[in-house]
Amino acid sequence: MACAPLPARSPVPRSSPNMAKISSPTETEQCIEFVIAVSQKHAGRDGNNSKLSKAEFLIFMNTELGAFTKNQKDPTVLDRMMKKLDLDSDGQLDFQEFLNRIGGLAVACHDSFIKSTSSQK
Amino acid sequence: MACAPLPARSPVPRSSPNMAKISSPTETEQCIEFVIAVSQKHAGRDGNNSKLSKAEFLIFMNTELGAFTKNQKDPTVLDRMMKKLDLDSDGQLDFQEFLNRIGGLAVACHDSFIKSTSSQK
Repeated sequence: MACAPLPARSPVPRSSPNMAKISSPTETEQCIEFVIAVSQKHAGRDGNNSKLSKAEFLIFMNTELGAFTKNQKDPTVLDRMMKKLDLDSDGQLDFQEFLNRIGGLAVACHDSFIKSTSSQK
Repeated sequence: MACAPLPARSPVPRSSPNMAKISSPTETEQCIEFVIAVSQKHAGRDGNNSKLSKAEFLIFMNTELGAFTKNQKDPTVLDRMMKKLDLDSDGQLDFQEFLNRIGGLAVACHDSFIKSTSSQK
């Protein structure tokens, strides 16, 4: 499927009344932009910005998802996570494999949220 | 896998020098929070906030991903997309199925981005 071009970011603040309707991406579009940007930022450390090496994955997990990693009691959790995510076993994570990590965490948080709101009813 | 609690949002602006290090979620955490919030917002229109009905999915696509949908020439594209995403064929999208839509679009945009940067080298 072709990717529709996302609206260009405005050089002016989002609150500008003249520009807001023309160029502001929606929050979902911003989220997609961000996930690609964070993947590029971390994957690009070794010069190959299309895949995350294990070292790059560990930096990503410790900086962007530190609230998750610091609560893990098992020191091998990130090693095991890397192996599980690396579906083609090439020792690196491509964007789809990387996205599966963020998606998996989002699903866990969503389920926890739904469960907590259901129990309050 | 249990979901680690995300840091609480600070009631003060992110730029507050005293609060930033304590309570600001990272951008990845904000992105996860946002995806859950947008799912809740759209899925909750009919009172069941754990799944998106077809009508709710169409509203989501037209408001949050309008840049994508307005470029589609085939008027049946959203119908076909809904059927493809609805893996358990219950006529609704649960959070995982909903996330697959955003993830699929992110992968398409990422691949397009990598292709365009490669051709510029």
